[in-house]
Amino acid sequence: MTEVTGRTKVWAILADPIHHVKTPQALNAHMRERGVDGVLIPAHVGADDLAGLVSGLKAMRNLGGFIVTVPHKTAMVDLCDEVSEPARAIGAVNTVRRNADGRLVGEMLDGAGFVAGLRQGGIEPNGKSVYLAGAGGAANAIAFALAEAGVSSLIIANRTRSKGEDLKQRLEQRYPSVPVEIGTPDPSGHDIVVNATSLGLREGDPLPLDASRLSPNQVVAEIIMQPETTALLAAAKERGCRTHPGRPMLSCQLDLMADFMGMHP
Amino acid sequence: MTEVTGRTKVWAILADPIHHVKTPQALNAHMRERGVDGVLIPAHVGADDLAGLVSGLKAMRNLGGFIVTVPHKTAMVDLCDEVSEPARAIGAVNTVRRNADGRLVGEMLDGAGFVAGLRQGGIEPNGKSVYLAGAGGAANAIAFALAEAGVSSLIIANRTRSKGEDLKQRLEQRYPSVPVEIGTPDPSGHDIVVNATSLGLREGDPLPLDASRLSPNQVVAEIIMQPETTALLAAAKERGCRTHPGRPMLSCQLDLMADFMGMHP
Repeated sequence: MTEVTGRTKVWAILADPIHHVKTPQALNAHMRERGVDGVLIPAHVGADDLAGLVSGLKAMRNLGGFIVTVPHKTAMVDLCDEVSEPARAIGAVNTVRRNADGRLVGEMLDGAGFVAGLRQGGIEPNGKSVYLAGAGGAANAIAFALAEAGVSSLIIANRTRSKGEDLKQRLEQRYPSVPVEIGTPDPSGHDIVVNATSLGLREGDPLPLDASRLSPNQVVAEIIMQPETTALLAAAKERGCRTHPGRPMLSCQLDLMADFMGMHP
Repeated sequence: MTEVTGRTKVWAILADPIHHVKTPQALNAHMRERGVDGVLIPAHVGADDLAGLVSGLKAMRNLGGFIVTVPHKTAMVDLCDEVSEPARAIGAVNTVRRNADGRLVGEMLDGAGFVAGLRQGGIEPNGKSVYLAGAGGAANAIAFALAEAGVSSLIIANRTRSKGEDLKQRLEQRYPSVPVEIGTPDPSGHDIVVNATSLGLREGDPLPLDASRLSPNQVVAEIIMQPETTALLAAAKERGCRTHPGRPMLSCQLDLMADFMGMHP
């Protein structure tokens, strides 16, 4: 990376644990490629200390912003001075811009990253019916981004039905023109099938949906990056579906984060 | 510098203004040479916001510590959990270590850097009589470090006599065995003559002392780095004195700072 001087602008990622994060490497490379005189550092902070560190960082005038990850995404909503409407409805913030006046503006870019990744892969969700497995943090972000992208309908299938119902209600409030329904494990009949659960991360995980009901006209998309070909994607390929891996969600999101946090030369 | 990852430890320098600081370049090079996985970043913070940022940084578990410079050295004393006795007597802290439990330990290394620089230049202050021009921040730090090094006597010459008297009192309290006197502009009769004022920084500055009274058996030392040969050092050379420039004070202090803040591999 370029040398850090007194003129270098600073960004951070707040997490606990911190050792495994890959964002510093990715966004420092991003800045190097674009000629930004900046550095993104890891900031290891526990849940009890998050508010204190964030309040302190507001005062750091050469701080451009920070990324927020596990376990801080939910708590960060109330620590921002301003939060986008979708991020507030989702109840999570993962990217914060520090304005010149010290105000912290929060946004949730997981879902926008997923949609940008789909589009980069040549899959346009606008006008399509989408089956979404999951109603947790990632599923929330993706559901709102898909509604924003103008899907024709959204089917939410979650093991715990009440969480799915809750997500449905918040979606309908913000996007009244998008039909949302609660689904079963059967994904048949929908254009795009998305796994937004963590099932597939560990070997031996059950499938997040009934893959025997998939048919060749469907697209099956993952949010899991590792393994690259999850059991679901393997089953979908076998059934003749077009598949979309988890990686583009992250790579596209990194660009969105850099833009949002003002990583410009 | 080496790539920043989730495992990289972080240090900072707190200052206002920040653009001109050179510590990031110096200490990042220091860490690179020693194989430390760390990065030192600039943190631009105003006087009103110092307490808030410092309190926030206490919570950052991968922060090793920070350097404090203009205008924060005095205020930092009360923001540390623990301050060395000399730093408290000097009334300034310029280096802070963050212990693993979050406690901030403050030290003032300007004077120790000056003494280490003298020794690096082959000049041992122990047992010598020293004439010190100035009683400001730098002079305070240097006076305490010279007393600690065991000078045989210390003569303080300052334009504002009361500031010199005040420094004398604090020195005598901590080092009762070191004779301290208030001097005149005449530096004659002392082994080592030190300029610890800012006179010489700007072209046309008056000399900090009466150079016509210097004699070849004296050592004349500067704290001003730029110009490398101040008017005082030029006059001292002309009078046949051995001279010692301002640069070693900084370079030696950087090593002391790195050690104090735990910049180890």
